[in-house]
Amino acid sequence: MDMPTQRGSGSLLVAWQLAGKNVLIVGGGEIASQRVDSVLVTDAHITVLTPSSGLNPRTQRFIAEYPTQITHLDKKYDNNPAELGLLNYDMVLTALDDVELSRSICQYCRDHRIPVNAADIPPLCDFYFGSQIRDGPLQIMISTNGNGPKLANLVKRKIVQSLSGNEGAAIQKVGALRVILKERAPGVGGDNGKRRMAWMTKLCNEWDMDELGKLDDDSMIKLLNEGWEKNHVPPPHALGIKHSVEMTFYPMLVNSILPSLIGFAVGVASCVWLRKK
Amino acid sequence: MDMPTQRGSGSLLVAWQLAGKNVLIVGGGEIASQRVDSVLVTDAHITVLTPSSGLNPRTQRFIAEYPTQITHLDKKYDNNPAELGLLNYDMVLTALDDVELSRSICQYCRDHRIPVNAADIPPLCDFYFGSQIRDGPLQIMISTNGNGPKLANLVKRKIVQSLSGNEGAAIQKVGALRVILKERAPGVGGDNGKRRMAWMTKLCNEWDMDELGKLDDDSMIKLLNEGWEKNHVPPPHALGIKHSVEMTFYPMLVNSILPSLIGFAVGVASCVWLRKK
Repeated sequence: MDMPTQRGSGSLLVAWQLAGKNVLIVGGGEIASQRVDSVLVTDAHITVLTPSSGLNPRTQRFIAEYPTQITHLDKKYDNNPAELGLLNYDMVLTALDDVELSRSICQYCRDHRIPVNAADIPPLCDFYFGSQIRDGPLQIMISTNGNGPKLANLVKRKIVQSLSGNEGAAIQKVGALRVILKERAPGVGGDNGKRRMAWMTKLCNEWDMDELGKLDDDSMIKLLNEGWEKNHVPPPHALGIKHSVEMTFYPMLVNSILPSLIGFAVGVASCVWLRKK
Repeated sequence: MDMPTQRGSGSLLVAWQLAGKNVLIVGGGEIASQRVDSVLVTDAHITVLTPSSGLNPRTQRFIAEYPTQITHLDKKYDNNPAELGLLNYDMVLTALDDVELSRSICQYCRDHRIPVNAADIPPLCDFYFGSQIRDGPLQIMISTNGNGPKLANLVKRKIVQSLSGNEGAAIQKVGALRVILKERAPGVGGDNGKRRMAWMTKLCNEWDMDELGKLDDDSMIKLLNEGWEKNHVPPPHALGIKHSVEMTFYPMLVNSILPSLIGFAVGVASCVWLRKK
């Protein structure tokens, strides 16, 4: 039987939705502060359970800057899940030096189907974290499936270098257009749905991300009135959006024009030198 | 209060672990087949619940190729979760045209804390899927947080172009080295742990991914015996691993040398032409 070769030993990479949910983070060190940072973007309510003394400075700042979103329980976990109301949480993340305490929290969570991650104790985790990139609504995750974070970071660096930094803005504008289109031509599927999808596809094919990112409220309305309503996609310049010269000019300059100029100069210099000989 | 600007409306991107777990996929269309494809890499046991008639050909092939990993229940979901043993599943993914049926499955899952995703019904989902890239143990996910899949695919294309295709192999070799090192110098943390981490860091800094990917069993053992055991990191060529010239040569050729040669030729030709005038 011909088995495809890439199967197995992988994860299911998913974007977990936590808006309005309750997340418990147990621990006060560097990793716990990374967890707070990751969860803050999800609009979850976060409870940080750790004594104040020795609390990581970044976590302290988060607690101070987000008083409605983060609750700080200034105490240690005392192995009393009922008293803590552990069942009220939608997710638990532990980052403790005390492995046995982590294990005990994890076991309770698993018995009660509360998604849980314990830093440094992979077998107890429902899921792992990976390297993350964020640019507005664009989120990218890199996982090496337990083969180490260093190469995940090298891959992250390659990816960051390949992005212009405008992708988040482009995605946000496209999202806004989709919402307005749904108002102008409502309905799930059907003729309206097909027409919306076809027009959005054409737009994303004909404009580049940099141009999409430059849409503002006025040009978006103009794009819809002069484009969508007339069933075509105007070019960016028709809406006053210039193609970003610097995005292609400087790489072109360095990569092609400079070597050509240098080659030209060497060619002329060689010619002159040969004449003198 | 100075609020950082990037907060909110995001997801928690995680690598869900499903090895040995039970996943139920309800539906027989294109999306259900994508779900089977995604879950297969996790070593979960998959149950596909859908009538045979009209079953997507790709899902049919998966069922045939993975008879021990995939069970096909040839029937419709009849709104009887107890009879189906829904509580035995660790994750449920629905991809049905029947929105009410999806809703009913989702409600049951949420009441019983079974992680659930219903394609096309975002409010019912515990998590979303995104664009995926896989290269052996390397997995990358791109999420636009509900702002549309087209730009996610454009970002995916940029990322794929930025990768050499050797990253997966490099990560797999580094993972294997970590395992062998843990045998040679065991222990979590402590002096051995620090020494292992320092040496792996040096290796990942001094070798590039392409070189790491070329390690085989023999060169790995040689690397450890002549490197790790002597507390240094030998260069790749000392182990017979050549730097991949074609990885840098052809881009260099096209981007710099060719324009230089053309510039040189134009320089000489201009000189000769000016002499004749």
